[in-house]
Amino acid sequence: MNTFGKNFRITTFGESHGTAVGVVIDGCPARMGLSEADIQPLLDRRRPGTSPLTSARKESDQIVILSGTFEGLTTGAPIAMLVTNENQHSSDYDALRDLFRPGHADFSYFSKYGIRDHRGGGRSSGRETIGRVAAGAVAMKWLQAQGITVTGSIREVHGTTTPGEMEQEILSAKERGDSVGGIVECTASVCPAGLGDPVFGKLDALIAGAMMGIGAVKGVEIGDGFAVARRFGSENNDSITAGGFASNHAGGILGGISSGQEIVVRLAVKPTPSIATVQKTRDIHGNEAEISISGRHDPCIVPRIVPVAEAMLALVLADCLLEQMKYR
Amino acid sequence: MNTFGKNFRITTFGESHGTAVGVVIDGCPARMGLSEADIQPLLDRRRPGTSPLTSARKESDQIVILSGTFEGLTTGAPIAMLVTNENQHSSDYDALRDLFRPGHADFSYFSKYGIRDHRGGGRSSGRETIGRVAAGAVAMKWLQAQGITVTGSIREVHGTTTPGEMEQEILSAKERGDSVGGIVECTASVCPAGLGDPVFGKLDALIAGAMMGIGAVKGVEIGDGFAVARRFGSENNDSITAGGFASNHAGGILGGISSGQEIVVRLAVKPTPSIATVQKTRDIHGNEAEISISGRHDPCIVPRIVPVAEAMLALVLADCLLEQMKYR
Amino acid sequence: MNTFGKNFRITTFGESHGTAVGVVIDGCPARMGLSEADIQPLLDRRRPGTSPLTSARKESDQIVILSGTFEGLTTGAPIAMLVTNENQHSSDYDALRDLFRPGHADFSYFSKYGIRDHRGGGRSSGRETIGRVAAGAVAMKWLQAQGITVTGSIREVHGTTTPGEMEQEILSAKERGDSVGGIVECTASVCPAGLGDPVFGKLDALIAGAMMGIGAVKGVEIGDGFAVARRFGSENNDSITAGGFASNHAGGILGGISSGQEIVVRLAVKPTPSIATVQKTRDIHGNEAEISISGRHDPCIVPRIVPVAEAMLALVLADCLLEQMKYR
Amino acid sequence: MNTFGKNFRITTFGESHGTAVGVVIDGCPARMGLSEADIQPLLDRRRPGTSPLTSARKESDQIVILSGTFEGLTTGAPIAMLVTNENQHSSDYDALRDLFRPGHADFSYFSKYGIRDHRGGGRSSGRETIGRVAAGAVAMKWLQAQGITVTGSIREVHGTTTPGEMEQEILSAKERGDSVGGIVECTASVCPAGLGDPVFGKLDALIAGAMMGIGAVKGVEIGDGFAVARRFGSENNDSITAGGFASNHAGGILGGISSGQEIVVRLAVKPTPSIATVQKTRDIHGNEAEISISGRHDPCIVPRIVPVAEAMLALVLADCLLEQMKYR
Repeated sequence: MNTFGKNFRITTFGESHGTAVGVVIDGCPARMGLSEADIQPLLDRRRPGTSPLTSARKESDQIVILSGTFEGLTTGAPIAMLVTNENQHSSDYDALRDLFRPGHADFSYFSKYGIRDHRGGGRSSGRETIGRVAAGAVAMKWLQAQGITVTGSIREVHGTTTPGEMEQEILSAKERGDSVGGIVECTASVCPAGLGDPVFGKLDALIAGAMMGIGAVKGVEIGDGFAVARRFGSENNDSITAGGFASNHAGGILGGISSGQEIVVRLAVKPTPSIATVQKTRDIHGNEAEISISGRHDPCIVPRIVPVAEAMLALVLADCLLEQMKYR
Repeated sequence: MNTFGKNFRITTFGESHGTAVGVVIDGCPARMGLSEADIQPLLDRRRPGTSPLTSARKESDQIVILSGTFEGLTTGAPIAMLVTNENQHSSDYDALRDLFRPGHADFSYFSKYGIRDHRGGGRSSGRETIGRVAAGAVAMKWLQAQGITVTGSIREVHGTTTPGEMEQEILSAKERGDSVGGIVECTASVCPAGLGDPVFGKLDALIAGAMMGIGAVKGVEIGDGFAVARRFGSENNDSITAGGFASNHAGGILGGISSGQEIVVRLAVKPTPSIATVQKTRDIHGNEAEISISGRHDPCIVPRIVPVAEAMLALVLADCLLEQMKYR
Repeated sequence: MNTFGKNFRITTFGESHGTAVGVVIDGCPARMGLSEADIQPLLDRRRPGTSPLTSARKESDQIVILSGTFEGLTTGAPIAMLVTNENQHSSDYDALRDLFRPGHADFSYFSKYGIRDHRGGGRSSGRETIGRVAAGAVAMKWLQAQGITVTGSIREVHGTTTPGEMEQEILSAKERGDSVGGIVECTASVCPAGLGDPVFGKLDALIAGAMMGIGAVKGVEIGDGFAVARRFGSENNDSITAGGFASNHAGGILGGISSGQEIVVRLAVKPTPSIATVQKTRDIHGNEAEISISGRHDPCIVPRIVPVAEAMLALVLADCLLEQMKYR
Repeated sequence: MNTFGKNFRITTFGESHGTAVGVVIDGCPARMGLSEADIQPLLDRRRPGTSPLTSARKESDQIVILSGTFEGLTTGAPIAMLVTNENQHSSDYDALRDLFRPGHADFSYFSKYGIRDHRGGGRSSGRETIGRVAAGAVAMKWLQAQGITVTGSIREVHGTTTPGEMEQEILSAKERGDSVGGIVECTASVCPAGLGDPVFGKLDALIAGAMMGIGAVKGVEIGDGFAVARRFGSENNDSITAGGFASNHAGGILGGISSGQEIVVRLAVKPTPSIATVQKTRDIHGNEAEISISGRHDPCIVPRIVPVAEAMLALVLADCLLEQMKYR
């Protein structure tokens, strides 16, 4: 299932070491100004090779719009966008051809399909998110015209919360051939009340599904999230005054529908599974083996998850806002 | 959006104080034995009025199958099921007609629709889950025939973890006119490898969406969940041996696809928003007011969430298993 | 697949001789006045037993709204509606239990599911259309508030085109234990320009799918339909003047999108397959047999198809109009 | 809505005079051999410029597979395919920039979107069908491995039925600056019994929607189609013998489900609306005008519809066959 959304629909395609990765957007409103320049900045934020904290894979990741615009405006036709893969180094993966990398999708993909493109994870690679991010940038442009801004940030890396500590944790893990996880937060404001659809299209359910569908994410929480499990109702309810809500424990969503407050979501990101440290595994024939994954890998994927999470939040909101517009 | 699922689809309907609540299941395999007796036990587990820990609303919640079976077997036709509402006490809600209850969907529904059925939350009531649970029971029966069992349990209530402490927390909160939250865990085994569909139909994404779509749930985590954010990759990866995985930090899902291990998911449940404690709010005309919600409410919704969470997990798994069967 | 539509979605359920038949509508706009009285008249038009031209099965077909309204207004919640089956006469079908009736779905259902509810065709019975018609009546009410009216009529019965001839054909066929087919036409006006969605949600494609999905329909044409195959382009194009189109060969749809003209669709309806005339068939065990279907059958289903076709056209238009409203 | 299908899903993109047209296939089974050579022959059959009977637009229409295969086999990942537009001649359309061409989608697209890519019809161009045909070729390859073959043919051109007469009609219309319509037939065999899904996923309903969604198609009939409207039931029913059905008036579909007989569908194709003959129209500002469309147009689109219709039939059958496989 490579399509996401009901009204603002995206379909992504492409593998880590194939010819290209891309996306088709279906349902974007017509007559919106759109060019590659609107999309490239968000893509550049997820691009590898830009700091010692990220993978050294060098890719320019230049987006090209193939369809859906005419004289600089969207026409209502599907918007297809493409990034050509440049720096594939497929041979880096020759040694891993038959091995299942622990923590990766190798074993489960092979179980499912009976075949896998072992080069860089194939379809399960993080490069697939290029399509999501490109589409998210288009959604963000439209949302901004409606007064809605989506932002994301790193909240924790391996338990630390200041930029200096976080960088230190990442570099230290990298040096030891290891990796670390962390927490990302995304917010959206000013989000109008009424987005989301009871009972199976709830805004928080859509966000949770969208975020948990990002590789490496193992937990999602809305508003105060897991902390509410240890609260009294009298502490947790957000009182309402004539001027609005007195607090926002709920993260901007009540009964699955936006309340007009800021939307707040946090994701738990696991440490990158590709590590140089030796691990036990087996190959596709059932033989035990040891594996040490050297090469171009992020010691911490958290920074690069941020634009992907922003993109997914923007896509959910654009979808729900279009849904809501039917009933204005 | 009152339909859930792609292959094993359910559509629920009904309000807290309407004539009836129910569900239509579409896509259930034919020639499976099915009667009300297969469904009632799970419904009884979510039924109120059975202990001092739950709401005193007395409902027998007897399920009736209206269609889709013939001589005790499913036929492939849609299975419609109905529970008649008996103990409505609509007048209990007269005082709340124009007030927004904090922590409930009242404000957001009214913002969305410009009208609301104020009686017991109308469509946003927990009674809607009767349809989900009835459908979940059918899914469970089919899953069991495929060797898959879904179970759920209470892991925490207001930070406590033993039955006695948990009961104490609930009764103490009830006495004070307050409420408490907690954590529910669900598992599924033996789940075959290969369920879930990259990249937007990932098993963990579907589970997260399903669980976050249950009222009162504010967080979802798979496997070790938020704990992974503070791990090293070398700690968090599950090694693979000839005999299988050496651990299950991943909660049975890799790259969004089941690995054959036990599926593990946990939900953070907020304290019931209906409390006798006085709260500030406003009415639909914008006037400030105070509200104290007496009546038949659960001081802790956690126990009654368990069968709902089991039902949703079963529905997701049945859906994914049917999807996977296309490609056998 | 018992769900139809994307924005104005309906899910039907129930069999000919089960407990009840019904429908759940999802996506109907809130705050629309709605009661059973809005729905019953269209249902009465499809009801059997009202004239010598139709089946003698006596059913009052009284619709009951179970959910989705509050104090006479829709709330945005799903609208579930039910008709209880009264006059089942299941034993009429005992002799047919193992026989495949020619021209019916008996053989194909049994091939698909390995089981069938033989009583009156089970799910494949025309009684399933009660749900469609009830939902169509709701769609029509909403469309009328938007200025759109859907109407239907009988255009041909067995090649004849006047009411007297048509009645004569039907009675004459009935007398001989036979049946006859005909042609139904539906129109919608004043339908705004812009409905329908290129390239796979074209209005004519949706209408064709909806109409061909009515039992007994074997052909669908839009505007001048099959006649255009024998035309020159210069004859067939509808010229455009400042005042509008000069003709309507296209039936109100250009490039799959409504042009603002009257929508025109015609359906070819086959003669009822249930006839007293002796036919060759076989049973589920492979034995040859002869079959003569006596009992309560329509010698011509064309009159009862009219309200069903109207309902389906209304459902498609309501769906497309909601879709279009997203982009106003 | 640029996506078609539920299990074998395709998403097309691209405009007549944009950079490229293409398609993404989602849900194609893994481990099927696939290369461009499997796809090009069907594309070549729809290509223009190959005979005096078709448009003179010269396009090589070379398909390129961008993703979804590895070492010559499908992997289960989405298959993206692209054809670059070469021979755009956009300036041919300068004179038509503000004019609505009668019989085309110009007026309705402009009404819907408030903008249009006037160059060759933009998204409404027949070039969009390149994506459908490419995807259809993949579906056909998979169907053939299951024993199902789809074929198409021209049955009528402007009322004539022999190749020589048909060619004569086309050339004569072309000479006079006019165009002619006709009828296409497609069949599929050996199609297993059980395909199609009651009540809104009927095989005939899906086929009718797919076929009516091809530009220029104004009518669709299954089996004997409109002829059944003038039949008696005793003539029209297909008797069943121990050896199978004695006839195939139904076109291989009973109750919306395939019976195991040959599937037969026919389409009425209108005369190409682009003609040199002078027509009345108006421009986007409301001014009346005259229009004569010279340039590279097909005097009869019927021959080029054949591979498109085959592709759509193959896509529907692949979709239904996958659906059915869930329940084997």
